[in-house]
Amino acid sequence: MSNSKWVYSFGGGSAEGRADMRNLLGGKGANLAEMSSLGLPVPPGFSITTELCNHYTANNNHYPDELKAEVDAALAKVESAIGVKFGDADNPLLVSVRSGARASMPGMMDTVLNLGLNDETVAGLAKASGDERFAYDSYRRFIQMYGDVVLGVEHHHFEDILADHKDDKGVALDTELEADDWKDIAKKFAGKVESELGKPFPQDPHDQLWGAISAVFGSWMNDRAKIYRKLHDIPESWGTGVNVQSMVFGNMGDSSATGVCFTRNPSTGENAFYGEYLVNAQGEDVVAGIRTPQPLTIAEKELNATDLPSMEESMPEMFKELCDIRDKLEDHYTDMQDMEFTVQEGKLWMLQTRNGKRTAKAALKIAVEMANDGLITREEAIKRIEPNALDQLLHPTLDPDADRNVLGKGLPASPGAACGKVAFSAQDAEDRVAKGEKVILVRIETSPEDIGGMHAAEGILTTRGGMTSHAAVVARGMGRPCVAGAGQLRVSYQDQTLKCGGQTVNAGDVVTIDGSRGEVMIGEVKTIQPELTGDFGVLMQWVDEIRELKVRTNAETPEDAETAVKFGAEGIGLCRTEHMFFDPARIIHMREMILAGDVDGRKVALSKLLPYQRDDFINLFTIMKGLPVTIRLLDPPLHEFLPTNDDEMVEVADAAGTDFETVQARAIALHESNPMLGLRGCRLGIVHPEIYEMQCRAIFEASAKVSKDSGETVVPEVMIPLIGSKREYDIMHDMVQRIAAEVSAETGTQLEYLTGTMIELPRAALLAGKIAEHAEFFSFGTNDLTQTTYGLSRDDSGSFLERYQEQGIYEQDPFVSIDEEGVGELIEIATERGRATRGDIKLGICGEHGGDPSSVIFCHKIGLDYVSCSPYRVPIARLAAAQAALNAEKLIDA
Amino acid sequence: MSNSKWVYSFGGGSAEGRADMRNLLGGKGANLAEMSSLGLPVPPGFSITTELCNHYTANNNHYPDELKAEVDAALAKVESAIGVKFGDADNPLLVSVRSGARASMPGMMDTVLNLGLNDETVAGLAKASGDERFAYDSYRRFIQMYGDVVLGVEHHHFEDILADHKDDKGVALDTELEADDWKDIAKKFAGKVESELGKPFPQDPHDQLWGAISAVFGSWMNDRAKIYRKLHDIPESWGTGVNVQSMVFGNMGDSSATGVCFTRNPSTGENAFYGEYLVNAQGEDVVAGIRTPQPLTIAEKELNATDLPSMEESMPEMFKELCDIRDKLEDHYTDMQDMEFTVQEGKLWMLQTRNGKRTAKAALKIAVEMANDGLITREEAIKRIEPNALDQLLHPTLDPDADRNVLGKGLPASPGAACGKVAFSAQDAEDRVAKGEKVILVRIETSPEDIGGMHAAEGILTTRGGMTSHAAVVARGMGRPCVAGAGQLRVSYQDQTLKCGGQTVNAGDVVTIDGSRGEVMIGEVKTIQPELTGDFGVLMQWVDEIRELKVRTNAETPEDAETAVKFGAEGIGLCRTEHMFFDPARIIHMREMILAGDVDGRKVALSKLLPYQRDDFINLFTIMKGLPVTIRLLDPPLHEFLPTNDDEMVEVADAAGTDFETVQARAIALHESNPMLGLRGCRLGIVHPEIYEMQCRAIFEASAKVSKDSGETVVPEVMIPLIGSKREYDIMHDMVQRIAAEVSAETGTQLEYLTGTMIELPRAALLAGKIAEHAEFFSFGTNDLTQTTYGLSRDDSGSFLERYQEQGIYEQDPFVSIDEEGVGELIEIATERGRATRGDIKLGICGEHGGDPSSVIFCHKIGLDYVSCSPYRVPIARLAAAQAALNAEKLIDA
Repeated sequence: MSNSKWVYSFGGGSAEGRADMRNLLGGKGANLAEMSSLGLPVPPGFSITTELCNHYTANNNHYPDELKAEVDAALAKVESAIGVKFGDADNPLLVSVRSGARASMPGMMDTVLNLGLNDETVAGLAKASGDERFAYDSYRRFIQMYGDVVLGVEHHHFEDILADHKDDKGVALDTELEADDWKDIAKKFAGKVESELGKPFPQDPHDQLWGAISAVFGSWMNDRAKIYRKLHDIPESWGTGVNVQSMVFGNMGDSSATGVCFTRNPSTGENAFYGEYLVNAQGEDVVAGIRTPQPLTIAEKELNATDLPSMEESMPEMFKELCDIRDKLEDHYTDMQDMEFTVQEGKLWMLQTRNGKRTAKAALKIAVEMANDGLITREEAIKRIEPNALDQLLHPTLDPDADRNVLGKGLPASPGAACGKVAFSAQDAEDRVAKGEKVILVRIETSPEDIGGMHAAEGILTTRGGMTSHAAVVARGMGRPCVAGAGQLRVSYQDQTLKCGGQTVNAGDVVTIDGSRGEVMIGEVKTIQPELTGDFGVLMQWVDEIRELKVRTNAETPEDAETAVKFGAEGIGLCRTEHMFFDPARIIHMREMILAGDVDGRKVALSKLLPYQRDDFINLFTIMKGLPVTIRLLDPPLHEFLPTNDDEMVEVADAAGTDFETVQARAIALHESNPMLGLRGCRLGIVHPEIYEMQCRAIFEASAKVSKDSGETVVPEVMIPLIGSKREYDIMHDMVQRIAAEVSAETGTQLEYLTGTMIELPRAALLAGKIAEHAEFFSFGTNDLTQTTYGLSRDDSGSFLERYQEQGIYEQDPFVSIDEEGVGELIEIATERGRATRGDIKLGICGEHGGDPSSVIFCHKIGLDYVSCSPYRVPIARLAAAQAALNAEKLIDA
Repeated sequence: MSNSKWVYSFGGGSAEGRADMRNLLGGKGANLAEMSSLGLPVPPGFSITTELCNHYTANNNHYPDELKAEVDAALAKVESAIGVKFGDADNPLLVSVRSGARASMPGMMDTVLNLGLNDETVAGLAKASGDERFAYDSYRRFIQMYGDVVLGVEHHHFEDILADHKDDKGVALDTELEADDWKDIAKKFAGKVESELGKPFPQDPHDQLWGAISAVFGSWMNDRAKIYRKLHDIPESWGTGVNVQSMVFGNMGDSSATGVCFTRNPSTGENAFYGEYLVNAQGEDVVAGIRTPQPLTIAEKELNATDLPSMEESMPEMFKELCDIRDKLEDHYTDMQDMEFTVQEGKLWMLQTRNGKRTAKAALKIAVEMANDGLITREEAIKRIEPNALDQLLHPTLDPDADRNVLGKGLPASPGAACGKVAFSAQDAEDRVAKGEKVILVRIETSPEDIGGMHAAEGILTTRGGMTSHAAVVARGMGRPCVAGAGQLRVSYQDQTLKCGGQTVNAGDVVTIDGSRGEVMIGEVKTIQPELTGDFGVLMQWVDEIRELKVRTNAETPEDAETAVKFGAEGIGLCRTEHMFFDPARIIHMREMILAGDVDGRKVALSKLLPYQRDDFINLFTIMKGLPVTIRLLDPPLHEFLPTNDDEMVEVADAAGTDFETVQARAIALHESNPMLGLRGCRLGIVHPEIYEMQCRAIFEASAKVSKDSGETVVPEVMIPLIGSKREYDIMHDMVQRIAAEVSAETGTQLEYLTGTMIELPRAALLAGKIAEHAEFFSFGTNDLTQTTYGLSRDDSGSFLERYQEQGIYEQDPFVSIDEEGVGELIEIATERGRATRGDIKLGICGEHGGDPSSVIFCHKIGLDYVSCSPYRVPIARLAAAQAALNAEKLIDA
């Protein structure tokens, strides 16, 4: 790829880039340029494009020839804007070097500050700033950061030197160290780098700069970045930009400060300025969560009941300027902004703005309020919500009346309640989850290395760091409840304990966290269902006005059906009748049926199941109040109902009034090499029609009764599973019609119903045109269709699926998001052919993909009538359907 | 369906029908019409169309209103041609009523002779013929046949009455009975019918006629007919015609006779008139094989070393007339004819002609000779041979030098040698075969009820009946070796023994039959490979000039490869490398590899397998002499190489130098719910690349060596199994290239090879365009593609496949003939997309369908480059490919 321009300058009230160039400049660089153009105080600098990152990766870590000249020119511009020179021994220009990808990747990419310092320029900085202690502190910070990030000298080496120095001097705090201490420490740091690497710490500022740029580009391909991208579906091809910017210092004494703020509350969505800052600190100190920061406003201070002075109080002028900037930026971007700022000796500088990450609750509130205020349209409000994020709102929260054995309190960093066994390391968390346990990850503070464990955990608890700490930001992004900075609690990794007020929690003990209140409880606490009103209700109403796809649910129990209706389900798209046979009172008859030697024996057993099954449907039809209910006839192979070990077989034999040998022989006879591809679905209906006949009878007797009782006609949809050819379907279709006619005659009821099939085999998709001659609806069973299209058993894919995702063979787990290329094409073929035969054929999807937003968008695109998903995914599907109708591309976190 | 004409008349030198109306009139009716038009002596009659059969079946066994008038008119025509009246008490017209389907279905359909006789007309027949004995014999035959076939009175009732009567009279033979005996017996027969049915035997000839017509149409749907159609792929929709024809009598004394003859020898194909006849007999006597018939010609008489006088000797004028008709019909039909004739008191009548069934050997000889004589073209000769019939010629025959313990001798009714355990009933034969045994079905004579057992058996032996008996005709049609009419042998169903000359064979004992010589041997006799020269060689040469599809073989052993080359294979299309690991010397290393805890352990074990694998390929490349060899890398899941029971696990542990627990744990870890859809094929290559690397190394080291040694470049085709996506293929492709480059560098050889994949998953077919970006060939793995497209495990389908075929859901077993609608469409999609990306991509098929003629025709139609099949199917595929090139429709036995 050839590009005429690799470097874009900004600062001093103008810029070469714009906010809409984020793909090229990365988010940070694009927004720095935009802020410059808006006339906001941005330290001058330049961005190197993401295309250069791709060029660098593709060319074995080499740069194009023309880059050096472009960087030199941009650097000269900065020098001229500030009036200081890079490498000037008297008054050096110092720069930060940061990554800036298209999508925000917090903590993933590496940063170097104070670049340009060396043994000479540090003296110049001391002179120019008039603060020798600051200059040498800055120098040692630079050596430490550069040594770690660029040169790969592990940071504990530096921490050891610092700790030894403090011990020698008999002091505890960094603030107790003086200029000479830092001078000494900087020398020791540089010496450590030399002894570790066998060559001296680089003194040439240009060498430093190129080293840092390469480190940023190189870090795009490090493991942490790869994992983050995998978790967030970010393509490798996007690349990162590099931002080189003149340094400003928040650590030049008490008239300096640094902070992070949000134009609205990112946790609740409340329209209140919100943030944290630290006096006399560099920006990394706030984000890294090492010092507990101060509140930005008086209101926050009161809310958090802290004594730390707010910026509103201690720096009122700076605060006012920042408030103006807040208004300007939110108006300009029409979205909640997450900003970084630094005050250097009484002068405010803006270092970053971006659309702020927020909880689902906050996202809802902000979107609804902005739309109501006319700042954005309702359509835009709908597009702003990541459908999967709703999941946070739909799950139970803690019952406020339940007893809580509160161990301690921290910051409410990410809402929702979570409960699980304590794990003190990311690895332990992953190991426990792999064994099927639910886990709360408990850390003093989290770091990018913990990403895997955070993802595995139900919730996250840290004892250090604020609302913008790594743990808080990442947890909100993942939708995991999080309590951060719970300073009363003591974690010992050594002892594997969490202690507070004389109580001790060991690894593996159960705790509950309430991310909305910041509380940590011992044991499990009772939960309550979420409220689905307020902002959620308003948005979902807008959503329903816009979406075209109907949303149904997969449910067979009254509980699930009720939950789904509450969540807005417009019918049942999949009622799996087999689940109804596992109840102990029923499975015995099911087994009797399977063990019977002939049709008559099976019919006797089936006649005992009929009343149960009929009651099941009466319940469902009553709950669904005339909404469509699609009932799938028995699907799994019969051996699933038989036990596999001898003891249980003896029990079953006793219960069924037969002997062990009979049960064993039947189990052996029914054994299959590949049950997924065996005698199941409609094959059972062909071989043992009496089973389906009983089920149809139960359906029609129930619909006749509920129609009569309620006065509202119930229109069940009878679904034949695993159809692979037209005649197979036709035989089953005739059977359904026949039983309906029988029940109609017996009950004197005019029955209304539809008969249709699942399309879950490639052959059924191809033959859809013929099958549709009689089938009145198709429901795509995407689980099985994925299995057969890929030749991939979901149960057995665990041994290699991860490897496949790592190697980029599967970009997505095909059982989570529809594989549009393969499975999707079959669905499209079936849709076209089905409709060609029968224009009004009803088309839906009932695999687990029905609740996956990108799959919902696909279903909308190809014109299905509905999706069906598990009850808790119904609102997600509704929102995704509306976004699809708005022709929204998949939203990338901005 | 409405048709203006249901009935077609023939006879008296003209006819309303023609030979090319066989679809409408059935084969027999069409040919009777044709013979009439040719001026041959055909007793007048009429045919009711096959469309009427469909109408009758579709309308719940009711006739259209207009039929009666058409039948009456046609009957009147016959009456006027013969000059006698139906039901005339003085000189009655008698008719036969026979079925006549589009395809010959020997013995399947029912026949009634002498219809029109009743208590009155029998006297008229006696008077008119001047032979009372003949008249009453005819009457009792009619009552018996009509009673059995039309009225459903079981034939043993009649046989018992006849036997009792003979006992009473103290005679043994029918010929010893006189007119009064037959009169008495006829009365008893009629009485039996009345006592069985509760109503008298029908006396009205018109009632008799309609009863017989309905019985024929009804018999189209009887079980025997259904089974025959299923075995021979005859659609139910074809229907049967009914032929009503004035009777002629071969049983009117010694100047009367009846016979069956072929224009050429149907067993050897020799251009010699060939047939059998019986003096003073009705046609059924010859075909049913109840009396052993006499030879037609002197030559035959000498060949069979019989004393029975030939027709050539005893009826020289009739014989000469028949010879003229033979010449006329063969010239007219340009194919070998199978004719039935009757001589009634010195007058020859032709009752049937049709293209004669023949052995594969005869078919070849006749086709080649007719083409060489210019009677037909070479193309026509090729179309004449049913590819599957070649199977008879390709299998071993008995070694002429081997010791033969000859038990007895019969007629060489269907060629080829077969060996198996004796079963004395069709049921026993089927049961034994179901248990995996090979069976020779031994019967006194066979009947249509035995079809299932005949199909199951390796060969058939009867002790009664001639070359045109049921057993002989059906066996030739099925390609089963058959010895018929072995009159020296005695079968006792009671004792379950076969005896001859003091030797006894019990059920389950092994015998060998030689259908080419008519010999029956005790025990197993050594066999030799077939000669592939002569007519076979000539025809295959013509075939090779015409066909466009290449034919390769599936082979991994040197033996198979050598056989295939001899059969004309043009390469190996599928070498399954896993078969090479089951040898005891190797499986131990395979297991070591599987049990190894890490990559290094696996590599050590693989390094021990490398020399074996390399030698395998050296052998194959050497045998194939530069022909292409496609090698599929390891495909099955690793657990297939581990034992499943504890004892074997202990052995394996010992052999592999580990403990039982390790072996057991590994087996459990590798267990899969659906191995077909699990960790196999290229998934192994992705997860354990070292396995495929070893295999590629073996391939390339072998090809380097053989190329060097032979001076001829070996171009292996490395095939990656179970590809489902592009990136998966690309990773594997890169691996192959890498190993090739390594071996090339190490050996200093320029390697030539292709890398490609199997298309055996629906997703691979859909993504073929992308996969073809790097893949140089596709081989359709139609076994797995059928399994995944249908969602049907071949191993587990047995429990319902038969039911599916019975219910017409699957017209063909999709694992035998390619499902063109579903699987076929995927193959077409992949073909189009693959070629769109890579115009010269090599396309072939390597599933078992590669040897199935109709599948070969499909492969030709969609333009594949080659098919690959098992060695013995190679000539069949070659012939099918030529027929496909000739645009031949699937040949139906004429």
